[in-house]
Amino acid sequence: MLPSDVVLSKVRPEALRAPESGIVELVNAGRDREDLIPLWVGEGELPTPALIYRDAIKSLEEGETFYTYQRGLPVLRHALAQYHSDLYGRPFDSERFFVTGSGMHAILMALQATVSAGESILVPSPVWPNLAACAGIAGVEPIAVPMQFSEGKWTLDIQRLKDALTPHTRALFINSPCNPTGWVATVEQLAELRSFALEHGLWVIADEVYGRFVYDGATRAPSFYDVAEDDDPILYVNTFSKNWAMTGWRIGWLSCPKGMGQVVENLVQYSTSGTAAFMQRAALGALQNGNEFLQHQVMRAGKARALLLEVLGSHSRIRLSRPDGAFYLFFSIDGITNSREAAFKILHETGVGLAPGTAFGEGGKPFFRLCFARDMDQLNDASRLLCRWIGD
Amino acid sequence: MLPSDVVLSKVRPEALRAPESGIVELVNAGRDREDLIPLWVGEGELPTPALIYRDAIKSLEEGETFYTYQRGLPVLRHALAQYHSDLYGRPFDSERFFVTGSGMHAILMALQATVSAGESILVPSPVWPNLAACAGIAGVEPIAVPMQFSEGKWTLDIQRLKDALTPHTRALFINSPCNPTGWVATVEQLAELRSFALEHGLWVIADEVYGRFVYDGATRAPSFYDVAEDDDPILYVNTFSKNWAMTGWRIGWLSCPKGMGQVVENLVQYSTSGTAAFMQRAALGALQNGNEFLQHQVMRAGKARALLLEVLGSHSRIRLSRPDGAFYLFFSIDGITNSREAAFKILHETGVGLAPGTAFGEGGKPFFRLCFARDMDQLNDASRLLCRWIGD
Repeated sequence: MLPSDVVLSKVRPEALRAPESGIVELVNAGRDREDLIPLWVGEGELPTPALIYRDAIKSLEEGETFYTYQRGLPVLRHALAQYHSDLYGRPFDSERFFVTGSGMHAILMALQATVSAGESILVPSPVWPNLAACAGIAGVEPIAVPMQFSEGKWTLDIQRLKDALTPHTRALFINSPCNPTGWVATVEQLAELRSFALEHGLWVIADEVYGRFVYDGATRAPSFYDVAEDDDPILYVNTFSKNWAMTGWRIGWLSCPKGMGQVVENLVQYSTSGTAAFMQRAALGALQNGNEFLQHQVMRAGKARALLLEVLGSHSRIRLSRPDGAFYLFFSIDGITNSREAAFKILHETGVGLAPGTAFGEGGKPFFRLCFARDMDQLNDASRLLCRWIGD
Repeated sequence: MLPSDVVLSKVRPEALRAPESGIVELVNAGRDREDLIPLWVGEGELPTPALIYRDAIKSLEEGETFYTYQRGLPVLRHALAQYHSDLYGRPFDSERFFVTGSGMHAILMALQATVSAGESILVPSPVWPNLAACAGIAGVEPIAVPMQFSEGKWTLDIQRLKDALTPHTRALFINSPCNPTGWVATVEQLAELRSFALEHGLWVIADEVYGRFVYDGATRAPSFYDVAEDDDPILYVNTFSKNWAMTGWRIGWLSCPKGMGQVVENLVQYSTSGTAAFMQRAALGALQNGNEFLQHQVMRAGKARALLLEVLGSHSRIRLSRPDGAFYLFFSIDGITNSREAAFKILHETGVGLAPGTAFGEGGKPFFRLCFARDMDQLNDASRLLCRWIGD
């Protein structure tokens, strides 16, 4: 055996089995290509606006470089409460909000708080794969529950969730608006999911990261906040990444029922020991000054969505759903069954970087995910290149 | 039951049992006191120098706010290799270094890579409590192995480690120089610990965060790098926090034997999804431009150590060890057996913030930890106040 194989043989099996991100794999293969049109990851091409990052610079220059509150700066937690009050039309207690080192970190802690090794969590699929992989590393079993795609629409059959339940199931992960499918749960469905969770003593981990990206003129998607009591066992994970072009920052938040303050403080302490205060100042800037930028982002994504639905939607060999939320087009191409293989091919032959549906678990294999929260010219070029690559 | 009690009854037991940081508990009680002399946490009063943080500002202004390499920027990984080559006098491969979102995050991933729920890790004690707490959250049992304090010296009896081994033990945590005791393992001891680990198929998690803070004129403490092969199953956790006054930044690194690149990339992906590129630019600045600042910090801590050993060391009711490394004085006061209770009393009656030894696990209860990587005037005042509070 090579020394590196000896080392790997000693690595914990759950860590060794963690899947390589099916997106990063593509990114690493094409990162340096000059004519690249990168539509594979969930971020736009706009950097964080100065009116957000300037507060981080000010903080740095003022020497705010010391350890800080594990739960987050009180001023940021208050601003999060205000943001939610404005968005959901009722008061929120700032004590329910915790600042995290990314939406991913919020998910890690939500899992740590709810599901043990040997237990399981229900995960409608296809979906952004990181929750399931994070669960797997903890020895938790993610149970994929397939969603249905037919007549251009994704649907979640709640009966299927009920059928997948085991005595060891402790939680339910719901990502709405959904990355990658664009599926958005209705208020009625959320109420039904809540009842199901309460009835079976399950936690809900609600990933509403894309809640502001909807295209029906509303300011937000339906949310568990619309149907839940404050004390319900629902953990909301969120991030500053998408709304405010802060993907590279690694800052998010977790919203919990009352009484979990010390638990979450400890989970922060023993995973990252907090988020830099100067980062939090920028996040505060985003909440206070970023609304116009966010609206511009949503509007731009809406136009891009319309363009793609027109161009790719009218191609005879492309099958797609109209995404009600998030900012991805999730489509298949007649005749292509293995999107991983094809995504590498498309990258090499056209320079268009797509995420293969294989990266999103069960049910994703024939699909491609294209991020449209980007510049219209880029998307125009990409559509043209894709249509030409597919042919008639 | 109150609704919050209902919620807590549903929290995963391992998360619920995670201990509140015995340091943060004090900090939260005294944070806003005006005449506070905060010697409780492991940080100085100097903010990050401009010659380090300016590179983060430049990066922000240049729009480096996108997702980046999960393993860390290649340029920073190269700089880490160079830093280690300079320090240990032999070549290092940059592929063994991974950028993490703090030393704590490096520890989280080191545990994830090595020990499963139901298994155990040996932890000489007293020690900084976060590794044991992080293990506990994962369902891993930390087995405390008491160190001995006698005649003003802390010692580790390796036979005791051997006696504590169980069939489920997978790793050994060694923190040298040790927080809080100031104990520094000799090269011979490190060699013996390495042999012990290899013989029993254990991983070593080596926390050498304080490796630069030694007071015998050397530039560094003995390290596992001095006795280990590159392929040994040793994971080194480290941080930019202490050397370069970057405690609030949350950036560190993990150093692994060859072949673990994809494993660690996945563990990063599924815990925080990476560290902000602009943070990494500052870390690079620290490695490239921060040596003089580091030397100044060590020199200053050396003088402070001498002062404290003279003033507190000559007090008839204080028992202490001369710390060979790190930047803490760990001392007991005759007649005081519960340091937690007494630390609150000292805080309220003198304004001096000490960390209670109870925060550092088995064997720590009668001790107090005082951070001396700080301004001499502050430490002078604190010594005077403490001596007066203790009385004759």
